[in-house]
Amino acid sequence: MNKAIGVIDSGVGGLTVAHELMRQLPKERLIYLGDTQRCPYGPRSKDEVKKFTWEMVEFLLEKDIKMLIVACNTATAFTLHELKEHLSIPVIGVIKPGARAAINGTKSSHIGVIGTEGTIRSDAYAKALKDINADLDVQSLACPSFVPMVEQGRLSGEQTEEVVGDSLLPLKQKRNLDTLILGCTHYPLIKDTIQLVMGDDVAIISSSEETAREASTILEFHGILYKGEETPLHQFYSTGQLEVFAKIAEGIFKEFINHFHSVTIEKATLR
Amino acid sequence: MNKAIGVIDSGVGGLTVAHELMRQLPKERLIYLGDTQRCPYGPRSKDEVKKFTWEMVEFLLEKDIKMLIVACNTATAFTLHELKEHLSIPVIGVIKPGARAAINGTKSSHIGVIGTEGTIRSDAYAKALKDINADLDVQSLACPSFVPMVEQGRLSGEQTEEVVGDSLLPLKQKRNLDTLILGCTHYPLIKDTIQLVMGDDVAIISSSEETAREASTILEFHGILYKGEETPLHQFYSTGQLEVFAKIAEGIFKEFINHFHSVTIEKATLR
Repeated sequence: MNKAIGVIDSGVGGLTVAHELMRQLPKERLIYLGDTQRCPYGPRSKDEVKKFTWEMVEFLLEKDIKMLIVACNTATAFTLHELKEHLSIPVIGVIKPGARAAINGTKSSHIGVIGTEGTIRSDAYAKALKDINADLDVQSLACPSFVPMVEQGRLSGEQTEEVVGDSLLPLKQKRNLDTLILGCTHYPLIKDTIQLVMGDDVAIISSSEETAREASTILEFHGILYKGEETPLHQFYSTGQLEVFAKIAEGIFKEFINHFHSVTIEKATLR
Repeated sequence: MNKAIGVIDSGVGGLTVAHELMRQLPKERLIYLGDTQRCPYGPRSKDEVKKFTWEMVEFLLEKDIKMLIVACNTATAFTLHELKEHLSIPVIGVIKPGARAAINGTKSSHIGVIGTEGTIRSDAYAKALKDINADLDVQSLACPSFVPMVEQGRLSGEQTEEVVGDSLLPLKQKRNLDTLILGCTHYPLIKDTIQLVMGDDVAIISSSEETAREASTILEFHGILYKGEETPLHQFYSTGQLEVFAKIAEGIFKEFINHFHSVTIEKATLR
């Protein structure tokens, strides 16, 4: 079976999930779709996020994928349940994997979560964490300025540090917090700056890394890991301008570009 | 649904998995069976390990479990495939979770694996790792003296350090090794000594921690996480003498004993 894993995101954030999939599952083929044209999803209504997400899913289903990864926290919060119910292939979101990794890692039981307004408003992380362990203390914080900053490619430098420092101030003041979940797949791109601001005593959980790991678990559990020898040809689609998308993708995938010679980036038009 | 998770092991090693399950899934109820009477499984033949494992599985199936965790690497290597095929509940072994965590963690792509003779002879870890990434370098080493040492409760001290140091010498000489998988659930009980011997540059992967994490993933994926409010009453069974078993269990669970007031330990007789 050489069917691809489908990955959808509101823009470039999900590329961090794609990167981790390539690293942890180097034989698997990916088809990625980023809705950069309509990014960010964070401030949009639930209905709008649902409509856009279903449009992306239909685009990928036509390409006969074997698994769907919703690599966008906002879309996961609002649509995962529905998608799991309606699709016959395994569907994985980014929220539960991050929550589980935080539960595994925390010693103090005080966990912070940062994400878009939509994700934080949905309270999906706090629910996921407390569903498993009601004794956890969860502090959530929306960081609406991060996604636009990342989509523009501003990933480091003094100005980025200032924005991150100001945004995270409320969490820095919480004592005993030992774990911070990056509840948005854009945030791993500014992980170093976030770590710098929070200090070394706080472990940063990248939902991207954890989601790729759980994708591996579920593929194996269902017996649909690719066992052949073909080198995967990954396909990337963006609904918006390809230039910025390609530049950010190149930055993320640089270690793989030479290894694979095999990434195509195309424009996608959704119905 | 308040059905229990069943956990089987050749002896006390699987208690490290049970401990992690309690920590990461505090609402779930466990039924544990350790075949201490016939431990160790490591040096036994494949047929014998299969026979003993099926006897344990039948004991737990009668208690109507919702998931089976084979918390013994030797039993996983020889029986997991067969158990998955024949049982209608999800079955999880300890080998793939450890392999996936190592793939996630390694930077150098040089991974060491230690386990019993049976596990190392089966080559199950090297296969699991290379199935996912053929480029990994895997060094496997059998440590037959560790399990009897742990079952006798000798977990630290000068003599233990000497045994561990001598056994791991061949791996210590491997350059670039940055990750070591504890391919036996007894080994987390001497993890500190193993870390001391290997040095801080080598990350030690406990298959127990990772298996509990994947159990959480699979329970959620199948929608069978316990959502009620009942405090779980865990049941532990041993086929051998209860004294040593209870003493080691107490050492492992000490942080939970006060919290739960709810662990029973009984003698099991297998057919």
